Amino acid sequence: MVLNYKAIFKLSGIIIVMMAVLMVPSLLVAFLYGETETMRAFITTILPMLFAGGMIAVGVKAQFDHLKVREGFFIVALCWTLCSVLGSFPFILSGYIPNFFDAFFETVSGFTTTGSSILTDVEILPKGLLFWRSFTHWIGGMGIIVFAMALLPMLGISGQRITKAETTGPTFGKLTSKMTESAKILYLIYIGMTLLQVFLLMLGGMSLFDSLINTFGSVGTGGFSNYNVSIAHYNNLYFEIIISVFMILAGTNFSLYYYALRGHWKDLFSDSEIRCYLIIIGSAILLIALNLWSSNSYDTLGESFRYSIFQSASIMTTTGFASANFDVWPTFSKMILFILMFIGGCSSSTAGGIKVIRILILFKLLKRGIAVRLHPRAIVSIKVNHKPISSDTISAVVCFVFLYFGIFFGATLLLSLEGFDLITNSSAAAACLGNIGPGFNLVGPVLNYSLFSDLSTFLLSILMLVGRLELFTIILLFTRHFWNPDK
Amino acid sequence: MVLNYKAIFKLSGIIIVMMAVLMVPSLLVAFLYGETETMRAFITTILPMLFAGGMIAVGVKAQFDHLKVREGFFIVALCWTLCSVLGSFPFILSGYIPNFFDAFFETVSGFTTTGSSILTDVEILPKGLLFWRSFTHWIGGMGIIVFAMALLPMLGISGQRITKAETTGPTFGKLTSKMTESAKILYLIYIGMTLLQVFLLMLGGMSLFDSLINTFGSVGTGGFSNYNVSIAHYNNLYFEIIISVFMILAGTNFSLYYYALRGHWKDLFSDSEIRCYLIIIGSAILLIALNLWSSNSYDTLGESFRYSIFQSASIMTTTGFASANFDVWPTFSKMILFILMFIGGCSSSTAGGIKVIRILILFKLLKRGIAVRLHPRAIVSIKVNHKPISSDTISAVVCFVFLYFGIFFGATLLLSLEGFDLITNSSAAAACLGNIGPGFNLVGPVLNYSLFSDLSTFLLSILMLVGRLELFTIILLFTRHFWNPDK
Repeated sequence: MVLNYKAIFKLSGIIIVMMAVLMVPSLLVAFLYGETETMRAFITTILPMLFAGGMIAVGVKAQFDHLKVREGFFIVALCWTLCSVLGSFPFILSGYIPNFFDAFFETVSGFTTTGSSILTDVEILPKGLLFWRSFTHWIGGMGIIVFAMALLPMLGISGQRITKAETTGPTFGKLTSKMTESAKILYLIYIGMTLLQVFLLMLGGMSLFDSLINTFGSVGTGGFSNYNVSIAHYNNLYFEIIISVFMILAGTNFSLYYYALRGHWKDLFSDSEIRCYLIIIGSAILLIALNLWSSNSYDTLGESFRYSIFQSASIMTTTGFASANFDVWPTFSKMILFILMFIGGCSSSTAGGIKVIRILILFKLLKRGIAVRLHPRAIVSIKVNHKPISSDTISAVVCFVFLYFGIFFGATLLLSLEGFDLITNSSAAAACLGNIGPGFNLVGPVLNYSLFSDLSTFLLSILMLVGRLELFTIILLFTRHFWNPDK
Repeated sequence: MVLNYKAIFKLSGIIIVMMAVLMVPSLLVAFLYGETETMRAFITTILPMLFAGGMIAVGVKAQFDHLKVREGFFIVALCWTLCSVLGSFPFILSGYIPNFFDAFFETVSGFTTTGSSILTDVEILPKGLLFWRSFTHWIGGMGIIVFAMALLPMLGISGQRITKAETTGPTFGKLTSKMTESAKILYLIYIGMTLLQVFLLMLGGMSLFDSLINTFGSVGTGGFSNYNVSIAHYNNLYFEIIISVFMILAGTNFSLYYYALRGHWKDLFSDSEIRCYLIIIGSAILLIALNLWSSNSYDTLGESFRYSIFQSASIMTTTGFASANFDVWPTFSKMILFILMFIGGCSSSTAGGIKVIRILILFKLLKRGIAVRLHPRAIVSIKVNHKPISSDTISAVVCFVFLYFGIFFGATLLLSLEGFDLITNSSAAAACLGNIGPGFNLVGPVLNYSLFSDLSTFLLSILMLVGRLELFTIILLFTRHFWNPDK
């Protein structure tokens, strides 16, 4: 049995046109700043894409109904890969990132809201490219999820099939009904959050351009900055507070905002995942602040808290902004950040990582496992938000976490072939798989990923996609089962 | 509800007497080598123990029947802790390890067959103490398991209760019936293996004393050596081969030897776990050898294989002997060794770690999890050796592995408070929890654990016990459930 290649081809045409349209704002930025070279790079990307994409989208006749699960997975993987390839052209054509693997890495890093960069000096980039680079975060974060939910049903593709492959986290709650309607609302929440953060940053005296860049990085939990030292460039407490708050908001389950907007405020505060999320961030902040203070990393306890709050929020939400070079912090603080990298944000947020809900389910599973040792005949069901979790969900969570660690160890091993130290390799793998951005040592917050070979750069790009698409979407494509389902 | 403290107290008396008797061979070694100081240390340990232990064992009247699960766990934990405390006296009294925490660490490391040492120079130790140090491996390894199975039923305590807490791995096969009988046979296999290895080492020209030390370290998968550079001291290919073979044999499920001795040779070669075990060792050997050769770490491919074979076997079986300073090997090789540290040997062997059978079950669970994504309605049972694994066993395996990683991350975090680098901390935690011995960086194969503070040394001692007793035995003692089962 083969996939519905005609439909997939037609869809590719639509995606190409969409991507071309999404590049227009960056072209305008380049125009406003009078960057002729950058404009040329965008125009030579946009026009052929519009032409070719339009031809395919209009010319190919295809039916979109009766889409199979396998096709759903394939389309999502294709969509992300295609967008990343197309999105890298402005970098290549402008000559700022001439190597394809590097440009692909940078674009994947953008769309997956990772924020890892191969650029040794971002500050030399023209504004048009910097805008595009950060705009990919905005599109990638909540954007593409909502897009998939809003657009694909219009094409006759059941939204549920797609979101199964794409939404972040094991449970998407009651939102799945009336997908298109709720997608619009989520989209509005996302835009509202964006406008509010831009406004608040500008209120503090940040330029419109910088406000946009940092907002795209925050609400998309991406982390690309237009300065080499990231947020540390401003050394401004107000900006750090605003960005921290919006990173934490972006790492929260968006469906809760949806319910909150409809008057169910209680849901927001009684939700187990969000409570667990805040408790973990809070504990990390406290422990790191005390460690920084007691180790004399900063003069006062207040200053220790200032940097601890920002960095804990940034890593836990998998944003990856840096307000300090946390690679020089004491080992204890670094170890906490390393653990946060694996946990990640809430389900149905723009954050990456394993996700708090899975950690919560695992923790309850472990608690039950210990109790069972003493009372072998006791049957205890695992509940989240007072509702029992099905054994299918538990199995899926368990598989996810094992696969996550399996991929992490495997990727670290492959990266080790380059000869860098274990901390560099393992933190690079964890930071890309979890869509965080910076790691430790040679890929620390004031450094970048330029040291890796093309092969490793490509591996890390795939890791970002694997992490963003909840592992299975990409992994499945490499199984025999996928291509020979009847065997 | 309280535990049966009287019975536990009487049992402690018996354990004390047993420990005193087990110290006699070391006293004889000290006598043979004319080490008066060491003899005094042993005599001042043995005599009070015999007296006090005898008084308790004879004086206290207690019933051993109707032992509860909780009491089984408590007794096993008590037995190991008590043996480790008592076993550390000769080190303290002789003045060679004056600090209690260090002596306790060294003894726990012996009994748990870990082989981590706090001694900066083992070569200055008298023969009597060196013998005792390695003899604890021999007792600890298979010894104490068999002991528990053979002795405790005689006291009227059901062997099954105890072995549930103590045996290594999730399945103990059909061996549980006729516990005492099979315990005797296992004991004989263990002694036979020991004698054979001593004979083979002496055949190659090794002294009787060194042969005993290295044999205790091999068959117990312990790894204590009487030289600072471990097996590298001999630089002898024959010794390395013999020790490698016996390490691999000791890391194999002993119940298979039992069946093999009864004529079921096929079981030995068709067993899924043993095949998986050999495949993992084989792959590690091949990859490390090629990496060592291609990175010019050794001149010839043959030499690369020589060191790769020994080191892969040593780490995978959680022995921890070193025939080379593998800490200077390229990162790829070190990463493979690091992954082997987590896997460990087979169930029901003297090895530590997560155990191959659990890795195998996890791998099958993962494979099923991926298949389920494509065929949501398919029901696939997980089989090992053509027999389906119960969901209870799968749950237990899943809990075990999560708990293992949870403890690993937690311990690494706590060790980080000392300020050493992440590799030192994480490899120390992994090496102690997995009962391996050496780690990387500051706890590398030619270094030792003396750098840690008393608190961290104690934490690492507990880690070794937790790892040896399959996590739950010790962890349970720290739960509210254990002490208040009715709440």
